[in-house]
Amino acid sequence: MTKNTKSFQDYYPDNMAHCYGCGRLNEFGHQINSFWDGEESICHFKPEPFHIAIPGFVYGGLIASLIDCHGTGTAAAASYRAEGRDMDSLPPIRFLTASLQVDYLKPTPLNNVLELRGKIEEVKGRKVIIQITVSVDGIVTVKGRVVAVQVPEELITKLIG
Amino acid sequence: MTKNTKSFQDYYPDNMAHCYGCGRLNEFGHQINSFWDGEESICHFKPEPFHIAIPGFVYGGLIASLIDCHGTGTAAAASYRAEGRDMDSLPPIRFLTASLQVDYLKPTPLNNVLELRGKIEEVKGRKVIIQITVSVDGIVTVKGRVVAVQVPEELITKLIG
Repeated sequence: MTKNTKSFQDYYPDNMAHCYGCGRLNEFGHQINSFWDGEESICHFKPEPFHIAIPGFVYGGLIASLIDCHGTGTAAAASYRAEGRDMDSLPPIRFLTASLQVDYLKPTPLNNVLELRGKIEEVKGRKVIIQITVSVDGIVTVKGRVVAVQVPEELITKLIG
Repeated sequence: MTKNTKSFQDYYPDNMAHCYGCGRLNEFGHQINSFWDGEESICHFKPEPFHIAIPGFVYGGLIASLIDCHGTGTAAAASYRAEGRDMDSLPPIRFLTASLQVDYLKPTPLNNVLELRGKIEEVKGRKVIIQITVSVDGIVTVKGRVVAVQVPEELITKLIG
């Protein structure tokens, strides 16, 4: 795992780094960090005690949020990789979520770090589909699927000037 | 709209009212409130300025979270109604999310109150399926679908004593 390198999210341009889920500049947000781990992407996140659903279990909305942002981050990283580009090369590649599917297989215990793992299902033009698992202590509790679409260059230009 | 009555979430037993999305006792959470509006359920929520995705637009993970909790709340209310029971009758009926599907049709502007509307697609035994739209200023930006399953009585008993 390339934990000593910058995360996918560290490469987001400043004006696109305010997302509540993954923006490093959003002081109120989750500020997740995703990395390559071989052919998969990985993200670790420790929920706060108040991120509960029923006592003892993680709030499903938080899990959906993490899947969402780990998915768009992985989509961007996969797209850079598919183009043979470094993640700090210009123009920046960013993705938004078109569709999010989350299947809660069992309650997720609120007692440890969550591990999200992303697999690229498809990279097709401006659309990338990512399959994601969420596990605690090696047990997969949730499966997700993110259909991400690349943000148009003109919108990025408008945002980052 | 029955805004002067108690919300669905006001009826949750105290020990099941800590959910980050809909628990009235979670001081850090969203504390959403859902009501019947005829055959549909309705919920209004004003995002905070930090609930952003890219500047000017609402974070998709927040929207997924609201759909999730409005869905489970609506499932509980629909189940009470299907059984001809008041929502303060015992034993309490609570639902958890088995599956969540969110389709982001267009970016959701971060400048006004979000309106969520739920329609019952199916009530079948312990499973209830809810279709939800999210709109701002009358324009639907997101569609969601929640498959909710009723929490087993033994778990409720364990939680609320």
